[in-house]
Formats: sequence, structure tokens, C-alpha cells
Amino acid sequence: MPHIPLEAHLPGITGLLEYRPDSAGPIRELTQILLRGESTLTEGERELIASLVSHRNECRFCTTAHTAAANILLGDTETCELVKQDYESAPVSDKIKALLHIAALVQQSGQDVSAEAVSLAKDAGATDREIHDTVLIAALFCLYNKYVDGTASVTPTDPAFYAKLGERITTNGYNRLPQGYNHLK
Amino acid sequence: MPHIPLEAHLPGITGLLEYRPDSAGPIRELTQILLRGESTLTEGERELIASLVSHRNECRFCTTAHTAAANILLGDTETCELVKQDYESAPVSDKIKALLHIAALVQQSGQDVSAEAVSLAKDAGATDREIHDTVLIAALFCLYNKYVDGTASVTPTDPAFYAKLGERITTNGYNRLPQGYNHLK
Repeated sequence: MPHIPLEAHLPGITGLLEYRPDSAGPIRELTQILLRGESTLTEGERELIASLVSHRNECRFCTTAHTAAANILLGDTETCELVKQDYESAPVSDKIKALLHIAALVQQSGQDVSAEAVSLAKDAGATDREIHDTVLIAALFCLYNKYVDGTASVTPTDPAFYAKLGERITTNGYNRLPQGYNHLK
Repeated sequence: MPHIPLEAHLPGITGLLEYRPDSAGPIRELTQILLRGESTLTEGERELIASLVSHRNECRFCTTAHTAAANILLGDTETCELVKQDYESAPVSDKIKALLHIAALVQQSGQDVSAEAVSLAKDAGATDREIHDTVLIAALFCLYNKYVDGTASVTPTDPAFYAKLGERITTNGYNRLPQGYNHLK
């Protein structure tokens, strides 16, 4: 049971964003800019960062939702699973491995992001902006994971819920859902 | 040295918010809403949450800046120090102690926020909205701490810098600084 009264038909982050719409606005906007805005990282690569961080924070709602989004964007259901298991051996470029490593360090602690990890990313072709965005996306998902689990919001078990949510955030992005939209329908 | 090129006269979060102004907009707005917007928690109490979380994440820049803000808002320089050392024995109400405890749990992990910790807060008079805001403020400061330290942004050692920044964020809030504003002048 959630720690605060959240609408039963809006599990996970969806009910939280409706609980306080004024704070939800900039959270949605920041996510839209970072995950769907102009970037030299693909949307799929950015969803891999979101999925990896959520997985390491053991946030089941966010991990499942962003894995669904990554799968759609990457066009397969293996890459994201392999990234979560061990990004070093996953079928992604050396640049993405190095950025995922930075994201994993951010998840532990900002102080853990070493000059060496950043050098490896730069040597693999990552730009300053890509490094900046990786750090900020990883930090944003730590916010999400702590928000979702810190309020004990509901985590659906039905895979159909996440399939629909993944489709929604790959098609419409992170903007507000239409009034009366029901994730479970 | 920062991991990415940040303006030397803008240390800590200040240079990061100028590095990517489009993502900075919603970060500033969210902070302004949560820390300065309408609330039954005072601005000083909310800065205590920010200071405690930053302290536990060992983010020296954010801890020092928000301690300066809390000191100004609370009108003393002891309370925030005592909260960071041990909020259970600090000179704050039982409600604030219980909310600071929730914030400390969020800093560790969202999953650590127990029904018991939430019950204690409710028994001490905390509202659902105060509990929600405490979780979200704590999660937001985890984002800040990871962003500031994950990019290795500069941490000034001059106390005058933080005194000025603390004054700025208690007077003007978290909105964008005027063009050409120099924290060190």
C-alpha cells in the first residue's frame, strides 16, 4: 500500500505525477528534454541508461517501464537485458559501454565518477555533452527511483501494463497524458 | 578539475546550470516549487532536508550552500549543524525529526522508507503532502548531489562564496541569476 493516497488506477510514477501536478510539470519537462530532445545519443541509448540505473536501484516499476521503452526503440528484447546483466559484455559500442559505466558510477555516488572513467569515454569518442547528459540522466533516474519506491507506489505485475506504458513513452514521450487516460485499459 | 568544460567563475551547480540552460530550466523550477512554493513546511525546514541529504551524500558544495540558506532562514547557525550530526537529538519538533528520518531513508534507498517511519511521521502530525514533499525534496537533492559531484564541478573553499550564495537563494530563490552575475564578487 502506498504511503500516501494515490489513485489506484495510476500505479508507479503515474499516480505521483498526478498527486502534485505543479511539481510534476518540470519533472516531465526535464525528462522530455534529456530523453527525447536533440542529442547525439539515440533515444534507445538514453533509455538504456535509464534502465541500467533503475535496475541498480532495484526499482522494479522504472526498470520494467524503461526496459519496455528501450526494447521498442532498439527493436529487440535482448540488448537491454544484457546491459542490465553486464554492460561490459553487452552488444553495444565501446562508447556506450563507457557511458553506461559512468551512469553506473553515478548511481553509486557522484564522487565515484573517476577521471579515468571519463577518459575512457572520451577515448571511445564520447563528447563532453554526452558525458554531461549521461551524468544528469543517471541522476534524474535516481530521483525517479527514490520517488517511486520512497512513497511505496504500486508496482503492477501485469506485463501488459508495461508494454502499454513503453509504447506510450516511445510514441508520445514524457508529456502529460490526456485527462482520463487509463494505463490499464 | 571538472570532467567537462565549465566556466571557472561559476563553481558547483552554478556552472552546470549554465552549461545546459534548457535542462537547467525545469531543474530550477522544480526546486523553486518544492523549496520556496506554498507549503506547511517552512522554507528553513525544507532547507534542513536539503542540507541533511547533501551531507549524507557527502556533497560538500550542496551541503555548505544549503546549510548557509538554512542558517539564514532559521536565524541561527547551530540547528542545521546539529541536524546533520544527529537529527534525533537536534532542537527541532518531533514532526520534523520524523520527516528528516524519512529523508535520510530516501537518501539510502527508496525501498528503505518503511511504513513504520511513515506512521511515526503521521503520528507526530505530518500530513500526506508533507511526507510526499519530503520524499521528493530528498530525491531531488540526490539528483543535485550526483550531478555536482559526478561532473567533478569545482567546490570553492572560501566561506564568503557560500555566504553570498546562501543569501542569494534565500532572497531570490532558485530562479536564474541575472546575466553576468558573478558569485565571487
